[in-house]
Amino acid sequence: MPSGITVTAGNEFDSLWLVKGTIVEESSLTPSPMAPVTNPRVLFAKIPKDFPVPGETTVYDTTQTIDLESVPLNGGFLLKTLVLSIDPYMRGRMREPEIESYMPAYPLGEPPYEPRLAVGKYVYGIIPHQAYNVTPSMEGLIFLEKNPMLPWTVFLGAAGMPGLTAYCGWKEFSKAKKGETAFVTTGAGPVGSMVIQLAKRDGLKVIASAGSDAKVEFMKEIGADVAFNYKTTNTRDVLAREGPIDVFWDNVGGEMLEAALDHANINGRFLECGFISAYNTDEQGIKNFGQVFGKSLQIFGILVLRLGQKYATEFYQEIPSAIASGELKYSEDASHGLGTVGDVILRVQKGWNNGKTVVIVADE
Amino acid sequence: MPSGITVTAGNEFDSLWLVKGTIVEESSLTPSPMAPVTNPRVLFAKIPKDFPVPGETTVYDTTQTIDLESVPLNGGFLLKTLVLSIDPYMRGRMREPEIESYMPAYPLGEPPYEPRLAVGKYVYGIIPHQAYNVTPSMEGLIFLEKNPMLPWTVFLGAAGMPGLTAYCGWKEFSKAKKGETAFVTTGAGPVGSMVIQLAKRDGLKVIASAGSDAKVEFMKEIGADVAFNYKTTNTRDVLAREGPIDVFWDNVGGEMLEAALDHANINGRFLECGFISAYNTDEQGIKNFGQVFGKSLQIFGILVLRLGQKYATEFYQEIPSAIASGELKYSEDASHGLGTVGDVILRVQKGWNNGKTVVIVADE
Repeated sequence: MPSGITVTAGNEFDSLWLVKGTIVEESSLTPSPMAPVTNPRVLFAKIPKDFPVPGETTVYDTTQTIDLESVPLNGGFLLKTLVLSIDPYMRGRMREPEIESYMPAYPLGEPPYEPRLAVGKYVYGIIPHQAYNVTPSMEGLIFLEKNPMLPWTVFLGAAGMPGLTAYCGWKEFSKAKKGETAFVTTGAGPVGSMVIQLAKRDGLKVIASAGSDAKVEFMKEIGADVAFNYKTTNTRDVLAREGPIDVFWDNVGGEMLEAALDHANINGRFLECGFISAYNTDEQGIKNFGQVFGKSLQIFGILVLRLGQKYATEFYQEIPSAIASGELKYSEDASHGLGTVGDVILRVQKGWNNGKTVVIVADE
Repeated sequence: MPSGITVTAGNEFDSLWLVKGTIVEESSLTPSPMAPVTNPRVLFAKIPKDFPVPGETTVYDTTQTIDLESVPLNGGFLLKTLVLSIDPYMRGRMREPEIESYMPAYPLGEPPYEPRLAVGKYVYGIIPHQAYNVTPSMEGLIFLEKNPMLPWTVFLGAAGMPGLTAYCGWKEFSKAKKGETAFVTTGAGPVGSMVIQLAKRDGLKVIASAGSDAKVEFMKEIGADVAFNYKTTNTRDVLAREGPIDVFWDNVGGEMLEAALDHANINGRFLECGFISAYNTDEQGIKNFGQVFGKSLQIFGILVLRLGQKYATEFYQEIPSAIASGELKYSEDASHGLGTVGDVILRVQKGWNNGKTVVIVADE
């Protein structure tokens, strides 16, 4: 008989969860016996050679069951996953465990797992990709207030880790001045679209790129002055015409970063947030890095894990309500069921998603 | 009959000169006639494919003469070159003029020339590589006080542009904290050796690399805690043992930069000052640039042309006297005569020089 039951209102492959729950007294638990139910999960089964292969590098597994009434909690908490977030950076953790990086490799044969969890109303944290989890700890979670105007999935995107990434990076490093020019890559994604809107708030001219015409339309809707599809338009031509760039938000790396280096203004600031172009291939190398001293550039690595906390309070005070009021816009790409996770991971790595990718696992 | 005569006390291929001179009244000029004298010069004759080829990419030319008595000055100044400076960055200007960079390409068939000159006591500026120059302008020069303890060549090195490069870059961007670890490349050169000594002043542990055992000895003499010859010792092994690196001073780029990225500490600062490894070859590309966000690195491009002025006053107040007192040390590699310039340019690109490379052209 568990000492407490929580209902998980959010989950992610390894990063961000909403957890809803209350600790109930043992005496108040319903005494009626429950049969074990399936506890589906997604396993990290094999390290990808290049792109992840759904069903091979990740496997949807339904062999486990859980008795929600009698699972031993040992003072911990039972969590029910509601929604989860799929993000580009996850590819970096699908690697050999001996390669060091800013987050540990996923353990093979298990749902990727982080030892941080929590209970209490709605919270945001890190647990395995599984319908139900039992966890001993509730350290490191952010508690969230439900906003009746917003679905919980927004707290995985524009009002979650990606939005906070954009917010803390822009506030800390852009040194943006009215009238300057920013170039934002992956401008239709949850990070890039927030950056576009923050840059417009600060009075910058914004050039934004993405990989489909639908994404270009969205970037225009949210205020980009120049929006283009990098697959059909030459990036260097656009930058030659609309630049030089004072602030570059880089989610891509590779040739896009090289183009930005060549079209940077003197004293430009480069905000390095991700390298989606290199996550699934051997990194080709940045060939014109010498521009960094030729143009007196400043380059800042952004990792929300380290920088986010400094800005989290003002972010949660400001951003969810600005989204609810319609002042800030977002776009979301939702699928349903843990069984879609493998496909959705590949969608994100391929850029086939339209906006923040979330998986809706269960109702509250 | 010239309206004024100046004596140039310094020169450089294109960058930094000491100019000594006084404007004299026409009436006080010695009336005795002077015969024309040879006015030797160094011409930039051909763009190098890789390394410069003395006698081919630069040509020493003695076909010109000058009549020091009667050369028309039109209100300008006659300058006599005394010493000049040869620096690694000069290779970057030996290029096709249509390629843009932070300094213009040298014009083919002429002594590389900058339109900035001056007269008055001792000054530091930019004029062509030529024994005597007539110039109309004295804008943009720094006036220097002679220090009886120091030869003028020091004002081309430790107390000149390279020293100021180290000084302004370190003060502006290192954010050095006592007890941190710095890694300094080309640590026996005029920039690197100043960085080593500034880092030691700030209480850092200093790892330093150079390309010969003699240079390693010099780096130890000036205070490096760990000094190694990168040609005979594996850089990555040293950094694995002595790192991680909090501050990286990069004069090299390429594999050295990649090694530093892999061995950087979280929140490390990279001070990018030069890419000697790539000046004479196709740039190979930096393959592990993704460390910049994984480790929350900050990277700063340093160009003394832009940043130096902010620190020039305190630099000239502090550094020449610290060199004269022996508190700060330097090493110098001097040759004699404009005819040696072509060879010396190659020496610098190959790293065969030992310390700051200067050419002594004439006596005061």
